[in-house]
Amino acid sequence: MQIKVINGNTFAAMTKGIDESAQAARSPMTEIITTQPRSGPQSIESYYDEYLAIPGILEEIRLSPDVDAFVIACWGDPGVEAARELTTKPVVGIAEASMYVANMLAARWGVITTQHRSLHMVLQTIHKTGFTHRCVSVRTTGIPVVETETARSQTVDRLEAEARKAIATDRVEALCLGCAGMGGLDKDLEQRLGIPVIDSVAAAVKLAEALVSLQKYTSKALTYQFPAAKPILGYSPSMQLDQGA
Amino acid sequence: MQIKVINGNTFAAMTKGIDESAQAARSPMTEIITTQPRSGPQSIESYYDEYLAIPGILEEIRLSPDVDAFVIACWGDPGVEAARELTTKPVVGIAEASMYVANMLAARWGVITTQHRSLHMVLQTIHKTGFTHRCVSVRTTGIPVVETETARSQTVDRLEAEARKAIATDRVEALCLGCAGMGGLDKDLEQRLGIPVIDSVAAAVKLAEALVSLQKYTSKALTYQFPAAKPILGYSPSMQLDQGA
Amino acid sequence: MQIKVINGNTFAAMTKGIDESAQAARSPMTEIITTQPRSGPQSIESYYDEYLAIPGILEEIRLSPDVDAFVIACWGDPGVEAARELTTKPVVGIAEASMYVANMLAARWGVITTQHRSLHMVLQTIHKTGFTHRCVSVRTTGIPVVETETARSQTVDRLEAEARKAIATDRVEALCLGCAGMGGLDKDLEQRLGIPVIDSVAAAVKLAEALVSLQKYTSKALTYQFPAAKPILGYSPSMQLDQGA
Amino acid sequence: MQIKVINGNTFAAMTKGIDESAQAARSPMTEIITTQPRSGPQSIESYYDEYLAIPGILEEIRLSPDVDAFVIACWGDPGVEAARELTTKPVVGIAEASMYVANMLAARWGVITTQHRSLHMVLQTIHKTGFTHRCVSVRTTGIPVVETETARSQTVDRLEAEARKAIATDRVEALCLGCAGMGGLDKDLEQRLGIPVIDSVAAAVKLAEALVSLQKYTSKALTYQFPAAKPILGYSPSMQLDQGA
Amino acid sequence: MQIKVINGNTFAAMTKGIDESAQAARSPMTEIITTQPRSGPQSIESYYDEYLAIPGILEEIRLSPDVDAFVIACWGDPGVEAARELTTKPVVGIAEASMYVANMLAARWGVITTQHRSLHMVLQTIHKTGFTHRCVSVRTTGIPVVETETARSQTVDRLEAEARKAIATDRVEALCLGCAGMGGLDKDLEQRLGIPVIDSVAAAVKLAEALVSLQKYTSKALTYQFPAAKPILGYSPSMQLDQGA
Amino acid sequence: MQIKVINGNTFAAMTKGIDESAQAARSPMTEIITTQPRSGPQSIESYYDEYLAIPGILEEIRLSPDVDAFVIACWGDPGVEAARELTTKPVVGIAEASMYVANMLAARWGVITTQHRSLHMVLQTIHKTGFTHRCVSVRTTGIPVVETETARSQTVDRLEAEARKAIATDRVEALCLGCAGMGGLDKDLEQRLGIPVIDSVAAAVKLAEALVSLQKYTSKALTYQFPAAKPILGYSPSMQLDQGA
Repeated sequence: MQIKVINGNTFAAMTKGIDESAQAARSPMTEIITTQPRSGPQSIESYYDEYLAIPGILEEIRLSPDVDAFVIACWGDPGVEAARELTTKPVVGIAEASMYVANMLAARWGVITTQHRSLHMVLQTIHKTGFTHRCVSVRTTGIPVVETETARSQTVDRLEAEARKAIATDRVEALCLGCAGMGGLDKDLEQRLGIPVIDSVAAAVKLAEALVSLQKYTSKALTYQFPAAKPILGYSPSMQLDQGA
Repeated sequence: MQIKVINGNTFAAMTKGIDESAQAARSPMTEIITTQPRSGPQSIESYYDEYLAIPGILEEIRLSPDVDAFVIACWGDPGVEAARELTTKPVVGIAEASMYVANMLAARWGVITTQHRSLHMVLQTIHKTGFTHRCVSVRTTGIPVVETETARSQTVDRLEAEARKAIATDRVEALCLGCAGMGGLDKDLEQRLGIPVIDSVAAAVKLAEALVSLQKYTSKALTYQFPAAKPILGYSPSMQLDQGA
Repeated sequence: MQIKVINGNTFAAMTKGIDESAQAARSPMTEIITTQPRSGPQSIESYYDEYLAIPGILEEIRLSPDVDAFVIACWGDPGVEAARELTTKPVVGIAEASMYVANMLAARWGVITTQHRSLHMVLQTIHKTGFTHRCVSVRTTGIPVVETETARSQTVDRLEAEARKAIATDRVEALCLGCAGMGGLDKDLEQRLGIPVIDSVAAAVKLAEALVSLQKYTSKALTYQFPAAKPILGYSPSMQLDQGA
Repeated sequence: MQIKVINGNTFAAMTKGIDESAQAARSPMTEIITTQPRSGPQSIESYYDEYLAIPGILEEIRLSPDVDAFVIACWGDPGVEAARELTTKPVVGIAEASMYVANMLAARWGVITTQHRSLHMVLQTIHKTGFTHRCVSVRTTGIPVVETETARSQTVDRLEAEARKAIATDRVEALCLGCAGMGGLDKDLEQRLGIPVIDSVAAAVKLAEALVSLQKYTSKALTYQFPAAKPILGYSPSMQLDQGA
Repeated sequence: MQIKVINGNTFAAMTKGIDESAQAARSPMTEIITTQPRSGPQSIESYYDEYLAIPGILEEIRLSPDVDAFVIACWGDPGVEAARELTTKPVVGIAEASMYVANMLAARWGVITTQHRSLHMVLQTIHKTGFTHRCVSVRTTGIPVVETETARSQTVDRLEAEARKAIATDRVEALCLGCAGMGGLDKDLEQRLGIPVIDSVAAAVKLAEALVSLQKYTSKALTYQFPAAKPILGYSPSMQLDQGA
Repeated sequence: MQIKVINGNTFAAMTKGIDESAQAARSPMTEIITTQPRSGPQSIESYYDEYLAIPGILEEIRLSPDVDAFVIACWGDPGVEAARELTTKPVVGIAEASMYVANMLAARWGVITTQHRSLHMVLQTIHKTGFTHRCVSVRTTGIPVVETETARSQTVDRLEAEARKAIATDRVEALCLGCAGMGGLDKDLEQRLGIPVIDSVAAAVKLAEALVSLQKYTSKALTYQFPAAKPILGYSPSMQLDQGA
């Protein structure tokens, strides 16, 4: 089984970090192909970043028609609905995956993430998914996304400090790491905090494997039908759709 | 006052139709500048189309720092949060504008739109806005977006037929036209149906004028701060941000 | 275009203040007629006050069949549904208007108001409208409504103090002024706070102008049909309805 | 124990019908005092009717400081919050009472009422209370409120016909009678339909008795504090409040 | 009228305390029969305890086919849906009863309970009922359930301390006592706190009396039909159902 | 890895069917141990059945401290919170598992199940999980649970018939099979219907494998702490807890 894991941004160090999380999580029979988009921002810290990242993410879906499943490795699941339109293969976002895992491990859980400005974006993701009654804490650390890779030690210390507030004040019982760059920090934080901490990339890889094993495909009944072929300006040939997709 | 109205797609006939709606709605002192993105699909009928349209929409925000407000003329309000990050000027989406207007005119209202596959997208927009208890009907006609411009007469007949079901079965009291290409059809439909029908483009132009008159700007306190400058691959120079935006 | 702005209470100083807000906000072509009801309490600070105010507000609708739109200038929008029954002209409440404007300017916003006892009433208004996920802060100052007119300087200081807590603790990015008596304080507070502050009366005037320009009327399809004529005891002749309204 | 049951409208035949329901429901030790307001419309079939009825309903609260509890006998519970401000005695609305009773008898229930135009008003009441997931059917019959008293036989036939649709199509398991004028029809309808049918007036009398027996009073901690004394124009002396209420 | 009040646990001291609350609340014509299950845990402080308690609670329903109503005296209403399947008589849970009473007395109310770990269980009960917008405070004291009976004085002091925080911080206006073992503490706490405090057992007894007086029965239309007879292993003969129930 | 799959009922034919589904879904390295409780009903078709089943389900958790994860194989996830209290190993319910899978495959999905009376139970499960905006169809077939095993051919025909209505009328794009007895019917139904059909047992096995691979455990921070040891009457020694669990 081949799973393509698509980093949402174009920062090679984070692509490498994501790959390590995914490789560590994969089953023996699974091959992980981690990539980053050809276009898009170095990190996703705003809606602007997110929307500029999505075409490149979708191009990665188009470029690999033969893999068995896709993971979109950016908390917020940028472009996941469009990705599902482009393929019959399962597509899993790391935000949804981490939330499902949290739901199965704890009654009250939270999300801890990077930039303060992302607070609304995270809450919107939770609201959209339907988990406002289960996610009782969203906390931001002010850490720039890039530093999750370049300053690992400070990152984990700041996550721990904020997580302790989430436990003491918000009474969370598990935490989702709300950034793909935090992959691999879960074990260290679990030891420090004593509650489950979810590496969202790892969670998504396992759910993608599950969907492939179940031989399930993305429904083409209505919402996720292949997009109709039509003129599209300003994008590479790989983004042009044929009649019949 | 200058308002830039950005067609979400790259179909010149629709840009012209949107311009007519916007011109008809503007106040005497308002100058309307209607444009279409340099990149993106001919019509937005899928999530894929929507996400490929957004960078071009955002580029239009970047290209006109001196207008007084922006309207994003595609029901679904593609990229509206990112647009708000890029400017202090007010940005209004036609979906939200039409829903606010409907709320002020009727207790129970609906949305009528084009492609059947858009049902979930419309419902998601309503859920995200918070109006699931007021919007009691979402109906799709199967009309391709392009035909809203090229086959006006059939379009209005099919809208009428579906609208009659919304009135009789769902007891709607007003209808939002859920596609920018339906601009200008409101008067005809109102006469046929006897209930308010909202041209979403016109609604957004008026709300944008209102915000400018109120001298209100987009909050830069947290969520809509200017995006941080960072390397962005594969986009034109107009999309690169400076330090301090 | 004539817009009748109806102060919810019978306090002449507040009617004057509301008129100033409305005049400042109106378009050049708009004539503002600000009135106060013939009956009702001096200020609306309880449900009792609100319900005693409504008949007088509705009488003002009945008395002016020829204006183009109405604004109900009391946060809480007392009687707005009944007002819509009495006329085909658009009727706008200042609470809904301010919330729509806040939604277009900021992701997270709040309401700041007068009496502590009004907390539930404000939350009920937000819940009824559907914005519990966007309004992240409701703060009360303990200021009596009358003092918003008679003690302007202390009012603005106390609003500022409470608003600073809303920004620091609740991370609001814009604020609605939750009382018609606070009209005109928005500019001063914006300078002090650095976030958009919405004069709810001004917001409603602009939305009423927008609805008139759009040539939209209140739907008579079901909920807002004219009330049936019937014996009504204890009210003035102006409140008696004819057959056919 | 004395319970004052206040008909919401000024139609003596309905006051009599309400009294019969209340008398039939009361416990042996309870004295029922059924009244109708001195002012207000003959029937409540619109928001206009409702708001003109409320001052008279509230006057009835003021006029009887010595009874032990109040019932507001109009589905929609007009003015119930204000009534609670005016007294420490329990105040029960027939809408809330009937919904609580329905919740204890059936998993899925509905409301059946008079005028078609009341659909939104009923749904708003259910939404405000929090029972949108339990109330699975709201059906209107088109019966004028007055005819619930003057044309009992046709009323019950039309209610039965609509109720059968609610059972077959919406799978309701119990029904609230959504009008005070339908009191006493519950037994007949239960026999015809085979499911619990709730006389809302009777339900409210029993809950009011329960609150009195429990020696519970309306909280004066915040929302339902006595309204402040202030000038009130155009109302009788009984509506003027003293300092200290 | 006979009402069987079923303590959820098998702790005789609590059964006695519940009986005292129920006896104090009953009407003169009502006979209270308070029992405890033959099987189950000494106290209900976890989901495990709750689920082991339910078969014994249901057996008590089966054992008394001739009483007029049942009260399940454990906050959380364990097994209440199944109890309704087993009988046509009304079944009232103390959680729902206390919440309905709170809703009629106060705009904003809270629940105060025992074990910290019960926080989610209480919130789940409120969410399931539909009162998340009315219940603004859930506070746990850490008191073991058994001590509510064996250490009354400390219990009331700790409840008071936590309740004061609920009033000051969460602005609650009434409180539900979230444990059957707290019955009888309401009067003392009301005097200390100055807001209504609801003895949930007493509330349920009154609502059960109300339902019996109304001659209402549990709907057998769909959800609460008698369970089908079928082989059931490992339970006493009293739990085996006959054909036709 | 060992996963214990616990049939919710005591019907050996269904235990065998569940085992086949689980065996077919397991990864090569996984050992499946399928059991049925020692106590409980032959099928779960009512709340009564469900609550009598739970102690036996929980006993199965207690009896196998050394397996790596548990699956509770009854749609409705009976006792899942209590099961999580009894172990640090992951526990997965088939309802939640199937809904998460559906969410990843389709925008609009439904549940199709057996008894008509289960409608409310299924809706309650969806409401509790938070997916009311994604699950757009719940349909019941009237098939007794036992017949899902004994009358496979008719079962699949009736499921197909009802599923076709869900597709045509409710526009579902995927379906969860809402009964453990329907395991293995997914492939046949997918071929007939052309949309993804989810075998809930298979889905849960894959998610349990995922959680074990991720080395995640059930949080013991608050809600799912081990239950306190206390006297429990009427249960076998295996249900008695030690101090410290």
